Amino acid sequence: MDEVKLSLFGFGNVGRAVARVLLEKEKLFRERYGVGFKVVSIADTSGTVWLPEGIDLREALLVKETFGKLSSWTNDYEVYSFTPEEAVREIDADIVIDVTNDRNAHEWHLAALREGKAVVTSNKPPLASHYAELTEEAKRREIPYLFEATVMAGTPVIGLLRENLLGDTVERIEAVLNATTTFILSRMEMGLDFEEALRQAQRLGIAERDPSGDVLGIDAGYKATILHCVAFGPVTFDDARVKGIAEVTAGEVRRARAKGKTLRLVATVEKGRVAVEPKELPLESPLAVSNNENVAVIWTDLLGELVIKGAGAGLKETASGVVSDIVRASLRKA
Amino acid sequence: MDEVKLSLFGFGNVGRAVARVLLEKEKLFRERYGVGFKVVSIADTSGTVWLPEGIDLREALLVKETFGKLSSWTNDYEVYSFTPEEAVREIDADIVIDVTNDRNAHEWHLAALREGKAVVTSNKPPLASHYAELTEEAKRREIPYLFEATVMAGTPVIGLLRENLLGDTVERIEAVLNATTTFILSRMEMGLDFEEALRQAQRLGIAERDPSGDVLGIDAGYKATILHCVAFGPVTFDDARVKGIAEVTAGEVRRARAKGKTLRLVATVEKGRVAVEPKELPLESPLAVSNNENVAVIWTDLLGELVIKGAGAGLKETASGVVSDIVRASLRKA
Repeated sequence: MDEVKLSLFGFGNVGRAVARVLLEKEKLFRERYGVGFKVVSIADTSGTVWLPEGIDLREALLVKETFGKLSSWTNDYEVYSFTPEEAVREIDADIVIDVTNDRNAHEWHLAALREGKAVVTSNKPPLASHYAELTEEAKRREIPYLFEATVMAGTPVIGLLRENLLGDTVERIEAVLNATTTFILSRMEMGLDFEEALRQAQRLGIAERDPSGDVLGIDAGYKATILHCVAFGPVTFDDARVKGIAEVTAGEVRRARAKGKTLRLVATVEKGRVAVEPKELPLESPLAVSNNENVAVIWTDLLGELVIKGAGAGLKETASGVVSDIVRASLRKA
Repeated sequence: MDEVKLSLFGFGNVGRAVARVLLEKEKLFRERYGVGFKVVSIADTSGTVWLPEGIDLREALLVKETFGKLSSWTNDYEVYSFTPEEAVREIDADIVIDVTNDRNAHEWHLAALREGKAVVTSNKPPLASHYAELTEEAKRREIPYLFEATVMAGTPVIGLLRENLLGDTVERIEAVLNATTTFILSRMEMGLDFEEALRQAQRLGIAERDPSGDVLGIDAGYKATILHCVAFGPVTFDDARVKGIAEVTAGEVRRARAKGKTLRLVATVEKGRVAVEPKELPLESPLAVSNNENVAVIWTDLLGELVIKGAGAGLKETASGVVSDIVRASLRKA
C-alpha cells in the first residue's frame, strides 16, 4: 500500500470540495488503486497548517467553516506563515495541489517540479502565461504536471486531448468554456438587459462581485489558450483575441432569437489562433449549451467531429478534475 | 528511435485503412512520439505475408486491391498458411493487431499476451465473452491490451472511462452504439417501412448482406457489454438483455414522431445490468443522434452528466481508434 503525501494550497470552496472527496472516498481509492492519501499540509491566506503524520481533514474542514481561516486552529496544530515557495521547499510531499487564484503561482509550480514534486492545478493564469516553461520542466524531470480542472472543470477535455486521439491530427476546436456568460445571455433571451442579467447572476452566486474576468471573456480566453497549448503547442494569453459579452445588447439577443438562433460566448482554437467572441448559433448546434454546461467540438483528420459536453463549473465538478489528476499523478509515481 | 514491430491480422476495409494511416503518418509519428512502425506481417483469409525487415505497405495495399487476396503476392514475398495462433507464436512482433471478425480470437489474443506481445483489437466478440480472462492476463504480465475501436469506432469513450474520471464513480451509461439501426429508424421516420429501410441501408453499404448483427441488437449488445466491463467490471454478452429493431413497425415510429419524439436503439448500462432496446426519446435528448454518430451519456457522482458524441462507424474513424491504441501500446512499452 502506497501512502501518497499531498500538500494542498488553497482552502476555499474548491479546496474544501477536494478535501471532502478525499475524505469520503479514502476507502474506495485504497481498494480501487491501492493508494492511500495523506494530506500533510493545507494553506489558506491566513497561514499553513503542517503535520507530517497527516492532517485530520474532518477537523480542518470544521475549523475553516467555523472560523473562516486556518490560523484559528492553534490548539492541535502549528500554523506557519510560509510563502508558497517556502512551503513547497520545506514540506515533504509527493504532490503539490494548487487550487488558489494566485496569478504568480507558476513560480512555485516550477519550484515544486524542481524539488521532484508532482503538481496538480486548477489555477489557470500560470498555464495561460507559462505553459511551455512549466510543461518542459515537468517533461525533463518526468514528473506529472496535471491541469484537467483548468478547462471545463472535471469534464475531461484535457485528458481526452492529451491521452487519446493519439493517431489523429486535431484541426480545429470550437468551445463554450464559461458558464457565467451562458447564464447572462440566457437571461437576456428571456428579456432582461445585460445589467439586470448580471445582477441576477451575482445574486445567485454565479457571477463574482468583480465580474470582469467572466464578462470580458478573460476566463474563456485563459481556457482557450490552454486548449491551444495542449492541442497545437504553446502560445500565451497575450496572443489570444478576446471579446467578451459586456457590449452585447438586448436588441442583438432578440434579433438572434428572432432568426431561430442563440448567442453564446464561443472560443475558436486553430493552430496559431485563439479567439473568443459572442457568436450566433443555430439552436441545434452542439455549442448551444445551457445552464452550467460547457462543450468542446473537436475536429480531427480521421474522426471528423467529436463532441464532449459536461459540467463547466461547480464545486464537486471541479473537485472531480482535481482528484482525477491526484490519482493519476499517484499512479504514475508509484 | 524505437522501431516497433507490428503484426496485422485482417486486411479487409479496416485493416487497409489502418495500413494507410500508418503509411501516411509515418513521418508525423516519428516526430511526435519518436516511434517508427514496421509491419512485419499481414494476414488475410488467403494467407500470411511475413517479412521480418518490414513489408512495403504501399505494395501490400496494391496487391490486395488488385487481386483481392494477399496470397497472389508471390513474386517478392513468402506467403505462409499459419493459423492465427501459429502466426502469433512464430512471428517476432511487439504488437498484435486484430481487425478481423474472428469470433474465437480470444484464444490467440491470450497466446499473444503469453508471448509478451501487446494486443490492439477492434474485434468485439472476444471482449464481450472473455473480458475478465483477457484483461487479467494482460494485467498480470503488465502488457497493454487495448480495444478503443470496439465501441464507437475511434470516438474515445473507452479511453475516457479507463484513463479519466479517476476520482468519480460511474453510476449509469446510456448510449446509442449502432449507426445502422439509426439509419433504418431515420428512414422509417421518413415513411419507409422496416424492410424498405433495411434494403436501402444494404444498397448503400450501411447494412451488411446478413443484417442480423445490427438489427437484432447484437452489435450494440456486444458494445454495451464492453462498456459495462470497463465501467463496472466483467460481465459477458450472455448476461445482456437485448432487443433489436426488427419488430419496430412504421406505426410505432409514426406515433413517436407525432408526440415530438424519435426512436433510437438505446443501450442502458448500470452495475450488473446491460440492456439494449428501442426507446422513444425527446428530440432534444443528447441520445437523439443522426447519421453515423454514436453517443454515450455517462452519469457520475461528482460530475453529473457527461456526453461524448462522435463517429460510430466508418473506415478512417475506426482506424483512428486502432492507430491511437497502437501508439499508446508503443509508448507504454518503450
